[in-house]
Amino acid sequence: MDRDTCWERLRAARHGVLGTAHATRGVDAVPVVFVFDDDRDAIVIPIDTVKPKAGGRLQRLRNLDGDDRAVLLVEHYDDDWSQLWWVRVHGRAAEADPTPGQLQHLAAAFPAYAAPESVASVIVLAPTHVTGWAAGP
Amino acid sequence: MDRDTCWERLRAARHGVLGTAHATRGVDAVPVVFVFDDDRDAIVIPIDTVKPKAGGRLQRLRNLDGDDRAVLLVEHYDDDWSQLWWVRVHGRAAEADPTPGQLQHLAAAFPAYAAPESVASVIVLAPTHVTGWAAGP
Repeated sequence: MDRDTCWERLRAARHGVLGTAHATRGVDAVPVVFVFDDDRDAIVIPIDTVKPKAGGRLQRLRNLDGDDRAVLLVEHYDDDWSQLWWVRVHGRAAEADPTPGQLQHLAAAFPAYAAPESVASVIVLAPTHVTGWAAGP
Repeated sequence: MDRDTCWERLRAARHGVLGTAHATRGVDAVPVVFVFDDDRDAIVIPIDTVKPKAGGRLQRLRNLDGDDRAVLLVEHYDDDWSQLWWVRVHGRAAEADPTPGQLQHLAAAFPAYAAPESVASVIVLAPTHVTGWAAGP
């Protein structure tokens, strides 16, 4: 899949799997939603107050404190394997306070984030490498 | 989500995301299909000859050569966030020749694997830790 197609599919998506490095377990993976911040050429992953949490600082954030390398996988699975595709973004990620623009994007993409205080912070993923694969044309 | 529920949902699934440690990129993630090998209490991920590959030894295998820690995430995404859930298995993984029983399981689960020579090898993931989360009951 060429680079333009990768970005096109990423931009049409809003859900993926975030992989981070864990000091002892090696790797972690967690589902995330995301939007794009075109001003920063970054992918913005909300840390929300909407979905129930186990409590305390999220492991994904503790992982990024120790190692800021991250991967975001967006994929389409289908029992018809001619329809399979995925796009993977490697980059550096860090927690940040959401900008007003990012909060607007998030609220527009996900109704739950229109509520005040629903986004506590964001993970900003700055892509360094993107690659993709598709079974079919 | 309690341990029994985690395993129940894993056993009802056959598709997930495999995370492995990459020497320089930190983490990799790739979609996979899988079956269970009850004789070995292991998750079996085929390396097939069916889906087109970029060529050469797959990066996921090279990653496991260097660090056998792996994670498998199985998840359900839904625009209705009360339906979200995921299960995550950490473990040790290594490439192996498929056993006859594993080939039978794979062929039963995925029609494409009924074809001779369709499975080149398998990644056998021996779970060390399983955890899960569900938004709703």
